[in-house]
Amino acid sequence: MNVRYPNGKLYKQTEAKKSPQEKKQLYSNRGMTLEEDINETNRYYLEQQIAVIHKKPTPVQIVNVNYPKRSAAVIKEAYFKQASTTDYNGVYKGMYIDFEAKETKNKTSFPLQNFHNHQVKHMKDVISQNGVCFVLLRFTSLDEIYYLDAKNLLYFWDRQLNGGRKSIKKEEIDECGHKITLGYQPRIDYINIIDKLYF
Amino acid sequence: MNVRYPNGKLYKQTEAKKSPQEKKQLYSNRGMTLEEDINETNRYYLEQQIAVIHKKPTPVQIVNVNYPKRSAAVIKEAYFKQASTTDYNGVYKGMYIDFEAKETKNKTSFPLQNFHNHQVKHMKDVISQNGVCFVLLRFTSLDEIYYLDAKNLLYFWDRQLNGGRKSIKKEEIDECGHKITLGYQPRIDYINIIDKLYF
Repeated sequence: MNVRYPNGKLYKQTEAKKSPQEKKQLYSNRGMTLEEDINETNRYYLEQQIAVIHKKPTPVQIVNVNYPKRSAAVIKEAYFKQASTTDYNGVYKGMYIDFEAKETKNKTSFPLQNFHNHQVKHMKDVISQNGVCFVLLRFTSLDEIYYLDAKNLLYFWDRQLNGGRKSIKKEEIDECGHKITLGYQPRIDYINIIDKLYF
Repeated sequence: MNVRYPNGKLYKQTEAKKSPQEKKQLYSNRGMTLEEDINETNRYYLEQQIAVIHKKPTPVQIVNVNYPKRSAAVIKEAYFKQASTTDYNGVYKGMYIDFEAKETKNKTSFPLQNFHNHQVKHMKDVISQNGVCFVLLRFTSLDEIYYLDAKNLLYFWDRQLNGGRKSIKKEEIDECGHKITLGYQPRIDYINIIDKLYF
């Protein structure tokens, strides 16, 4: 029997296709890191053709590589480099999207030391080119996630440079930011916030 | 004495500030790789606040890392991964910009084997999100560079999949592409092409 929504649209039992084991796995993912949740979200956006957002690879300075016969090249010595940009970028309806994601165990404020000078400089560059730029902040102990526009972050960053506090108060984030409820699919629906802010 | 352009604008002798040695170095860079030329171009765009375009780091699968006391972490074993996207992306006047750069020693055609399935798939994704997507093709023996829209590349790619030739004829690139003359600063002025095509 076909089940329909009140508006007449057919209800597709996509969830029912998953085995109980699969579902259990999915729902037991509560311990996922912010990065894993965002990658999962981006995978969903890509598959559903909603947006094309990728995490940039970790920048590495390669010093020494072995090229063994008949097998893949092995990097034998390399070092982590500091990223010169934010971690995530891509395109949504023609618009350039750029963001960084950070988490804290704090409950009452978000430490600004989570951000580096390079990243803040990059955010300024993106803003001046009219890109959509923001940060996703997770309070892990509270299990709360916020979308904070980069312009707001820059305000708090500059306040710190001028001798102000070294963190953003939770209440300030509540006021300027946009809370994102953790979902099933997509897990962290930041595109929904962009829709509200830009369309 | 101030030298002025015919429109009255002051001519700034920025080049004159460079020492003869510096200039010699700059002009002896003719052997630069396409990647170096593009990085140089992007650095110029960034400094001049024209656009914010970065090369993505090479993706690496890290297997083993040493954490010596009192010094930086050393990656002792890692492997190159195939990129899932193109190499360059960023923002220009709010628009998402995405491209790949490839070179060939051939003189009469550009081999399609230079591109990977992943990259082509990514280009399709970007196009469907209305991003600006293209490839920069250099014929090294001819010292010629072309801007080719990704839609054109996809046409030739699909022709190959349908049993057609495995390369793009030089004449075809001449016809669909846009030749870029190598400049001093910026070296490969692809933003100029975007201006012509989109503004």
